Amino acid sequence: MNSPGTSLPFDVESPQEVAAAWSGIIEPGDPAAGRLRRELGDRAALEWIFSPGGGDPYRKRLWEGAPEEGARPPIPWHRAHSRWHPRARTLDVGDLLAKAESLGSYLLTPADAAWPPQLAALEDRAPLALWVKGEADPAILSAPSAALIGARAATSYGNRTAQTLAYDLVNAGYVIVSGGAFGIDTAAHRGSLAAPGLPESLGATVSVLCGGLGQLYPAANTDLFAAIETNGLLVSEVPAHWRPARWRFLERNRVIAALSGAVVVVEAGLRSGALATANRAAEIGVPVGAVPGSVTSAISAGAHQLIRDGAELVTNAAEIVELIRGEPLLTESSSGAARNGEMPKKTRQVWDAFPLSRRSSAADLALAAGLGQAEVELALLELQLDGHAELTEGVWVRK
Amino acid sequence: MNSPGTSLPFDVESPQEVAAAWSGIIEPGDPAAGRLRRELGDRAALEWIFSPGGGDPYRKRLWEGAPEEGARPPIPWHRAHSRWHPRARTLDVGDLLAKAESLGSYLLTPADAAWPPQLAALEDRAPLALWVKGEADPAILSAPSAALIGARAATSYGNRTAQTLAYDLVNAGYVIVSGGAFGIDTAAHRGSLAAPGLPESLGATVSVLCGGLGQLYPAANTDLFAAIETNGLLVSEVPAHWRPARWRFLERNRVIAALSGAVVVVEAGLRSGALATANRAAEIGVPVGAVPGSVTSAISAGAHQLIRDGAELVTNAAEIVELIRGEPLLTESSSGAARNGEMPKKTRQVWDAFPLSRRSSAADLALAAGLGQAEVELALLELQLDGHAELTEGVWVRK
Repeated sequence: MNSPGTSLPFDVESPQEVAAAWSGIIEPGDPAAGRLRRELGDRAALEWIFSPGGGDPYRKRLWEGAPEEGARPPIPWHRAHSRWHPRARTLDVGDLLAKAESLGSYLLTPADAAWPPQLAALEDRAPLALWVKGEADPAILSAPSAALIGARAATSYGNRTAQTLAYDLVNAGYVIVSGGAFGIDTAAHRGSLAAPGLPESLGATVSVLCGGLGQLYPAANTDLFAAIETNGLLVSEVPAHWRPARWRFLERNRVIAALSGAVVVVEAGLRSGALATANRAAEIGVPVGAVPGSVTSAISAGAHQLIRDGAELVTNAAEIVELIRGEPLLTESSSGAARNGEMPKKTRQVWDAFPLSRRSSAADLALAAGLGQAEVELALLELQLDGHAELTEGVWVRK
Repeated sequence: MNSPGTSLPFDVESPQEVAAAWSGIIEPGDPAAGRLRRELGDRAALEWIFSPGGGDPYRKRLWEGAPEEGARPPIPWHRAHSRWHPRARTLDVGDLLAKAESLGSYLLTPADAAWPPQLAALEDRAPLALWVKGEADPAILSAPSAALIGARAATSYGNRTAQTLAYDLVNAGYVIVSGGAFGIDTAAHRGSLAAPGLPESLGATVSVLCGGLGQLYPAANTDLFAAIETNGLLVSEVPAHWRPARWRFLERNRVIAALSGAVVVVEAGLRSGALATANRAAEIGVPVGAVPGSVTSAISAGAHQLIRDGAELVTNAAEIVELIRGEPLLTESSSGAARNGEMPKKTRQVWDAFPLSRRSSAADLALAAGLGQAEVELALLELQLDGHAELTEGVWVRK
């Protein structure tokens, strides 16, 4: 099982140190890393990365048990080595863990009981480590949850809606996952934290960040991040000092999608990153919802496009719960629209057929309503029983 | 072919007089009338209605060629006779036609070339006659069209949207069908009439009324009805003096649905009649769209429910045209949301990896971006070619 030449500058038997090493070497969502780790195991995969030679990690067969090349497209391993090895050379695992601890954060690894199992849906793109900060039990990462996401430049309508949905969902027992950005994300986190139904032991909201926990972004949300630390969790895939760089947002979004029981886009323009998150969710089988808005609002156009592409239109927390559970709750039927109040149809028809004078014979009512006289007389009896009509001096009077 | 005893008080060889007779006897949408007419023909069916005896029109075999009882549930013919015969007894076909003429209206029958063939989708509930008033060619009843319908108590958002959609659809060559009511109907008619693309020879809009053409309702829309007469058509199934009674609205709605290439609900509460029209449309295979709105607006709740039940979310005229045609037009793809401007992904990633100083070596950029050095150098060459970066004294500078 051991590689002949390479020794690793950390304890490969420690899940913490192995996870920290992966986190410090690979960019989030690099499928080559996931595959190498899955097929060779952590030790052999990391030894190959740390060895200066590179080359094909399978053909060299430096270790026992290397599998044959699989059915998937082959990975250009020399390129993978050329992007990982330079970082491995400068990696200090002990320093990463020490920095995390000094920030009050800790590292969650796939070996931990609280590791969210639903991340496995990301297959080779699944995170290999999560840096976590906050007082909530990390079990909330596996609790029933919904992601509420959307535009940074949200309207007051979008912000209000996100806040209300988050508030109601937390009261219904759901954790709210979002990304800590301005606009919809902020409104969703704030709505969660305001909910009185917030379970003390769990925490209401999870913010999945793009940069490291020492690079909280945007800085103007410092108060929000502090509140989330108290009643929820801040989560990041990358070491504390890594930047919230643009190319990492799309990969951060896949974690939001995979953690959540449903992804709901509250407001989003046609080119919003929230749509990319929704697409990631759909790819891995997480249900997608979107909140409608004005057809004249460009910031709702992305949400409308999602609905046209098959996302579920949702207008309240109950409909989001339904989306998460995958089954309809009892709701007011739209077929109720055809009902005419509480009277049976023909009785109502006779009631409506009375002239403005409110006085008529049964025969005239039959002519006016286009009903047979026997039907009209039956309806008149019902109206009389309910106090809606009476027979006075041989003439029916509507009350 | 002739019945032994009954003579009819009008010319049964005249399609006009036959249609006027049906219109003056039956309530709109009475399936028993459609079936009797289809199975026995106009003459035998009407003779049975006019004969005082009633009874089973098939068992008596008063005429040749009466078919066996069909597979459908049997109709209680004695009740049908009891509701039709009293009206037949007092019917004056000549008077109906004279009244219509004095109003400037005329009768369209299934024998006319301009009779809209799509009404056949209503089967035994199809109208047997249409009273028409207006200067437009009755051919517009068969032209490509969309129904725009919705709440009487519409919001300014709903009214503006209906007006804009109608305006754009008429300019795109579609006729707008609606019901002449306050709110969305009025906005749809007005938007159609305002469209400069209105084809002179055809007319922009059709108003299908619940009452007769001598009972235009609501009275406050008199100016609108006059404008529609000039540039469109007023249409009704019932004789000029019949009331726009409540029970007739649901049947009027089926005509709106059957005439239209698509039915679009602009704003509707959960119990709106517009939802019933949409359901009628869906039953006969006419595509249904709905316009989204605020989740806090009760008057959009019905439209949202329709979308959740499978109606297409539509936000503009192009999407309604797509709905009518049943095929997607070329539109901006939602997957475009994932695009990062115009640069290829890795080039953008290198561009983003520059530090705040905008100066870096290729090796440091590779470390920061998590890319191999060869990939970074290729990206830098591309950036240089596009003028986005340059190599100065051995250091790369982002422009």
